[in-house]
Amino acid sequence: MDVVLLGSGNVATHLAKAIKSAGHQIVQVYSRSINNAQILAKQVNARHTNDLRNIADADIFIISVSDDAIPQIVSQLNLQNKLTLHTSGSTDIAILNPVSKSIGVLYPLQSFSKQRTIDFKTIPIAVEGNSDKTTSEIEKFAFGLSRNVFRLNFAKRLALHVAAVFACNFTNHLYTLAEKILSKESLDFELLKPLIKETADRIKQYHPEDVQTGPAVRKDILTLSKHKEYLNDNAELNNLYTLLSQSIINLHYDN
Amino acid sequence: MDVVLLGSGNVATHLAKAIKSAGHQIVQVYSRSINNAQILAKQVNARHTNDLRNIADADIFIISVSDDAIPQIVSQLNLQNKLTLHTSGSTDIAILNPVSKSIGVLYPLQSFSKQRTIDFKTIPIAVEGNSDKTTSEIEKFAFGLSRNVFRLNFAKRLALHVAAVFACNFTNHLYTLAEKILSKESLDFELLKPLIKETADRIKQYHPEDVQTGPAVRKDILTLSKHKEYLNDNAELNNLYTLLSQSIINLHYDN
Repeated sequence: MDVVLLGSGNVATHLAKAIKSAGHQIVQVYSRSINNAQILAKQVNARHTNDLRNIADADIFIISVSDDAIPQIVSQLNLQNKLTLHTSGSTDIAILNPVSKSIGVLYPLQSFSKQRTIDFKTIPIAVEGNSDKTTSEIEKFAFGLSRNVFRLNFAKRLALHVAAVFACNFTNHLYTLAEKILSKESLDFELLKPLIKETADRIKQYHPEDVQTGPAVRKDILTLSKHKEYLNDNAELNNLYTLLSQSIINLHYDN
Repeated sequence: MDVVLLGSGNVATHLAKAIKSAGHQIVQVYSRSINNAQILAKQVNARHTNDLRNIADADIFIISVSDDAIPQIVSQLNLQNKLTLHTSGSTDIAILNPVSKSIGVLYPLQSFSKQRTIDFKTIPIAVEGNSDKTTSEIEKFAFGLSRNVFRLNFAKRLALHVAAVFACNFTNHLYTLAEKILSKESLDFELLKPLIKETADRIKQYHPEDVQTGPAVRKDILTLSKHKEYLNDNAELNNLYTLLSQSIINLHYDN
């Protein structure tokens, strides 16, 4: 199939490569930034543009930009009956109504950073279409990209995205905060790596709630107060420490 | 060496097995709960007691209980010159002054849950003694348990413990919260596992700050507001979402 990809960020980049690997043709990459459009287009042997009036013809049009940027693209695009998808976890399918009669969602649940190669075949992909026929088409296309494709309506997709923010984006930020705490004391982040690995590995086998460790779940008030005292000069870390510890206590002591 | 272990929790349990594997003898396990003392003692072929007046003779005494419980043990123990250690990340070595003239800390930096077997040899162990001679003795003993032993004073050990709470305890709690969000929508936690794995794997290679993803680091205000609206009926999750997102924005946009 011929695909036009609108977007050049992390998701668009990883998706473009997966689409090409699945044997499809990316005919064109659009981006507001002609430079970014060109960089991605070059990697997948496609044409590029930064002008929505010059969008090429194709079988599938995939809008893979930040949620903020979808409305502007939609307002300038008329693709009639051509299958048009977005890749957003938190956007209703209906946003694409002005663009085409055949619309849907292809939401890959993974954290894409430019630096990392990811095996797309293992990534869960949530799909939704505005008709049974369209949903089947999207599903078929998605199964070319990944083994793990499932149908999901907007409410559940939104929940999945929110959960992913907690489990991935916030988790990575906690790693960053931990690194900052260490570097202030000239300690190496390497020290935490066995701990981070064990924490992630453990939940392959156990429910995270059942393997919670640390001072909060032990209600070790003395340690909690020492840690808060240590963080006393950093209001942000102190607030986070308090809120997360209280959340652990609330969950495990049912009050 | 003959070791008396005071404590029967997760750290004490994993430590007892590692000590035995290193060729030492656990002569006695003490716990406030005679039942817990017996359970652990049985596993390492030791005697057990719940009476601090009946502590056996040994070469090393290791107090491995929650920080809250250390003072009570210390107040009832007089071991004169016998090497006495605690395993707490957040407790000053000086707490052991009333117990012995030869005191120190052996702080294994790992998250121990009863369910999991852990390769102790890879665990970073921070040691500290109240004299050079004592520190060397502790270091030697620790190197029998792990390849990764290093000296650390109290201020740095406390920072390490705080950082570990962020990187491990809080991270595991975020996994739990994500699981709760999914289960409310009848979605399977399995869906998040590739994402959790990638998030943890990625930092083996990259600095976490450099691979932050998600709506906050993109300043995708629309997605952030949709997520907060979704969490509107749960004040705790909503607060955590707001505070963590703001912390990401603060860190990455330097304001």
